[in-house]
Amino acid sequence: MAEIHPQHRAHMLVDGDVSVPVTAISLADSPDGSPNEDVLVYRTCGPDCDVTVGLPPQRLDWICERGDVETYQGHPHNLADDGRSAQRRGEASKAWKGEKRAPLRSTEGRTVTQMHYARQGIVTPEMRYVALREGVDVQLVVDEVAAGRAIIPANVNHPESEPMIIGKAFLTKVNANIGNSAVTSSIEEEVDKLRWATRWGADTVMDLSTGDDIHTTREWIIRNAPVPIGTVPIYQALEKVDGQAHELTWEIFRDTIIEQAEQGVDYMTIHAGVRLRHVPLSANRLTGIVSRGGSIMAGWCLAHHQESFLYENFDELCEIFARYDVAFSLGDGLRPGSIADANDEAQLAELRTLAELTERAWRYDVQVMVEGPGHIPLDLVEENVRLEQEWCHGAPFYTLGPLVTDIAPGYDHITSAIGAATIAMGGTAMLCYVTPKEHLGLPNRDDVKTGVITYKIAAHAADVAKHHPGAQQRDDALSKARFEFRWHDQFALSLDPETAIAFHDETLPAEPAKTAHFCSMCGPKFCSMRISQDIRDAYGSGVATADEGMAQKAQEFLELGASVYLDAAERTS
Amino acid sequence: MAEIHPQHRAHMLVDGDVSVPVTAISLADSPDGSPNEDVLVYRTCGPDCDVTVGLPPQRLDWICERGDVETYQGHPHNLADDGRSAQRRGEASKAWKGEKRAPLRSTEGRTVTQMHYARQGIVTPEMRYVALREGVDVQLVVDEVAAGRAIIPANVNHPESEPMIIGKAFLTKVNANIGNSAVTSSIEEEVDKLRWATRWGADTVMDLSTGDDIHTTREWIIRNAPVPIGTVPIYQALEKVDGQAHELTWEIFRDTIIEQAEQGVDYMTIHAGVRLRHVPLSANRLTGIVSRGGSIMAGWCLAHHQESFLYENFDELCEIFARYDVAFSLGDGLRPGSIADANDEAQLAELRTLAELTERAWRYDVQVMVEGPGHIPLDLVEENVRLEQEWCHGAPFYTLGPLVTDIAPGYDHITSAIGAATIAMGGTAMLCYVTPKEHLGLPNRDDVKTGVITYKIAAHAADVAKHHPGAQQRDDALSKARFEFRWHDQFALSLDPETAIAFHDETLPAEPAKTAHFCSMCGPKFCSMRISQDIRDAYGSGVATADEGMAQKAQEFLELGASVYLDAAERTS
Repeated sequence: MAEIHPQHRAHMLVDGDVSVPVTAISLADSPDGSPNEDVLVYRTCGPDCDVTVGLPPQRLDWICERGDVETYQGHPHNLADDGRSAQRRGEASKAWKGEKRAPLRSTEGRTVTQMHYARQGIVTPEMRYVALREGVDVQLVVDEVAAGRAIIPANVNHPESEPMIIGKAFLTKVNANIGNSAVTSSIEEEVDKLRWATRWGADTVMDLSTGDDIHTTREWIIRNAPVPIGTVPIYQALEKVDGQAHELTWEIFRDTIIEQAEQGVDYMTIHAGVRLRHVPLSANRLTGIVSRGGSIMAGWCLAHHQESFLYENFDELCEIFARYDVAFSLGDGLRPGSIADANDEAQLAELRTLAELTERAWRYDVQVMVEGPGHIPLDLVEENVRLEQEWCHGAPFYTLGPLVTDIAPGYDHITSAIGAATIAMGGTAMLCYVTPKEHLGLPNRDDVKTGVITYKIAAHAADVAKHHPGAQQRDDALSKARFEFRWHDQFALSLDPETAIAFHDETLPAEPAKTAHFCSMCGPKFCSMRISQDIRDAYGSGVATADEGMAQKAQEFLELGASVYLDAAERTS
Repeated sequence: MAEIHPQHRAHMLVDGDVSVPVTAISLADSPDGSPNEDVLVYRTCGPDCDVTVGLPPQRLDWICERGDVETYQGHPHNLADDGRSAQRRGEASKAWKGEKRAPLRSTEGRTVTQMHYARQGIVTPEMRYVALREGVDVQLVVDEVAAGRAIIPANVNHPESEPMIIGKAFLTKVNANIGNSAVTSSIEEEVDKLRWATRWGADTVMDLSTGDDIHTTREWIIRNAPVPIGTVPIYQALEKVDGQAHELTWEIFRDTIIEQAEQGVDYMTIHAGVRLRHVPLSANRLTGIVSRGGSIMAGWCLAHHQESFLYENFDELCEIFARYDVAFSLGDGLRPGSIADANDEAQLAELRTLAELTERAWRYDVQVMVEGPGHIPLDLVEENVRLEQEWCHGAPFYTLGPLVTDIAPGYDHITSAIGAATIAMGGTAMLCYVTPKEHLGLPNRDDVKTGVITYKIAAHAADVAKHHPGAQQRDDALSKARFEFRWHDQFALSLDPETAIAFHDETLPAEPAKTAHFCSMCGPKFCSMRISQDIRDAYGSGVATADEGMAQKAQEFLELGASVYLDAAERTS
């Protein structure tokens, strides 16, 4: 994986047997000759690899050394797992050149979740890894995971992943959705989207495939994923019954869960909060039920007039998840699909159920996060995270946006980034990105990048607002570079150096413009950064009053030429 | 001016002699045959016109009928007004085919500001116009303008403008900056940018030209502007002294103010808050002074060791503004240029001075708004508008963003939209847009559009959050259209129909896809909107409980085919 800028390079933080990659951004000296230290930033892209072989299983030793797992003969792979049209395709698995490991699960009666270890006071290498990665004390990690306020998604069958933590005491994370649909895209494209999304900073990736080769696509994605992978298993289960929701059964669903757990899915969205009694609550909504999973379960309940099989069998789900360390992402199947439906009875009734399910999962030491909306007017955003935190006892909140207005299709990465930054400042632990194609079509490669960068902005804005230790360091380094006309450093410190460079080149393409002490906006004679330098020169580093030697300084300034170089940054006033 | 979508057309709201244009968006019937009323939305683009003739002076009769203005021999136009390089150019004025009116000003001793009239209890046609435009009682307009909590920028020499109001009791407004620089762009391009910006919804436009033909460019802009025009006169004054800030004088500045007032500039940014005593406060900042105007004044104070001539002569400025109804936009020359400098001593000291100047202007019945930052971390955004409202006695706040992080050059329309929506929800009356080119170069036509649309999103999100009457109507109409698969209506109701259509076409280009009852994401067999319709059919419009006839409904559902059409809107879970 090529670095996104020549001044970026991978660097290892080491703590005993734990090595965490970060991106080191090298910087030029300041104009006064003083050096600027490398800025180290969180790195999600993982090492380079041959995608037909996959990443090295770096966590495998840690998992095996705990002595609580066994290999076994897993779920037999059959064509139906790849969806209805697998007959036409399904060839990709033959191209796989990597290892085919037998699946792991806990030995009978054991629980292998990070929450279980934390509650036992066991400090796992995964915990030490995330502590180093976040720059926090490992005890904070242990405490937050034990209390359920944070999760480390880490299926024992996904040893390729680099451990990360989702919780409000840590950096706000970003999820990117990928996955094919009935119409489009190959396995290679989806693996490429995975690597592309993590290159720009996605912390987890959800594979939402509903089209061909579901099982095989997921296999390739997981084997190449340096980040935790999430899924919505009901999509695959629905394919197994040819799209007829009322034909779904608990047994088909359970088999699908196990199939995916054996592959290494780290967290699964489970819409067990859509109960029979909640279905009528959506009848008078402006936009009904907009969640696919929620609709499937509501349709099933409606067709059978029975309680949801997910709710009824939730304890068995917990038992399964505990054996692989799959985390719940409790789906908000009744989330509002328009601001008119925000915070309504259907949404809040489901949230009450999600709170109950959170406690049930915790009884099994199974990790849980809770999904949130969706479409919410800005004045109601904070209430969403507050209620979730109160009712769900601090379980990490994982929200889609929320979009704060419905009137801007084509710009919903922006309408939702506004809500996302606000809800993250309020304590949401992970944000699911929204791309410009939301409501209109499937995101392409450019949309994935725009979605990830937009959400890195929202997440980072929240981390800065929450005074997360060190979060502002990159802002300050970039602003200092800007003030000192270190253009290359400004680009290197950007979330998207290539776009910043391209925009700068549009006005002043020549290389000298990137080393000149003025900006592209106003040319060499008009630059506010320069007058600020002059003021600093006049008053030194101690804050002087206007009386102290002001006349003398004024004289010096005039003698030095007194030409005012104005503006730079802001175009207005 | 072509409409932005075939379902859009200009429509007139009429109240006696006042006619306010709005855009009427026509909608198709719902699938059940019930009609959907036209949605009327605020319209800023003005009527079509020949740009060499300009718009009709529709306010001229209202102005003259008040009997308090006179025409006079105005400022003689000379080449220096067009900037240093005017000799090379300055030909554009010869192409002007429109009327050349003598300037108006108040007769001696009279004040012609909307604030003056409001304080006298006089209800002007301008006030009735904005009341109709905002859908509020005219008395609210009178009260808010009289109290200084809102302004109606309406220079007597800009009779082409359609009156609008800026105040927190009204819709949040958006300003777009245009203007040439030393490097680029012609008069025609700037007029085109003006019309382009208002087409997408800019409520006011600031002409920040610093390059060639400053006077003539502004003349063409004002004569073609259906919206109030703002300027930063110190830019032109600086050109008159060949860019040497220390050579500026009060007399040169005053002449420039009068020149611009005679042309019809509706509001002017005046950096009178950058006092001599404030200059040292910026010495230890990470990014010093980033405002051009602020830097010019700081440079002048530093060079002369004297109090700012703007502060010293503020009363005379008020007297001049009162004779034309020019509104102050009190510039925040010491606004932070990085989040590290947010809410610091320099910024807040200047805000205290702006509060003092607000009261001084109000003594002359001169309208005032106060400018705000800039770069502010999200947790400090609300404090900015709270302090401004408290200290400045509710004078309208007009902010640039603020940007909530410094790390995303190329995406600063997004970093700032997050801050903008939040600060507008807190009571900011107008938002100055930030384009993707911020910090990197001058915005082109696409950037202007992206900036305006992004800021319409932020402003509208705030209006919805503030429960502004009727603000949510467009959201609800669009969401209803989405739920009912009225794709053309969904596009027509979008802020940017052409982008929404283009994105939809990328996945499903054929016309049938725009009338089909499914979405582009998942195809015909998988659509959550459909299951919601089924639930509504099952439970009717009254909210039923799960017990009431549920078994019967389940039976009906199965008889109807029970095929579940799933998903649509949200890609996740």
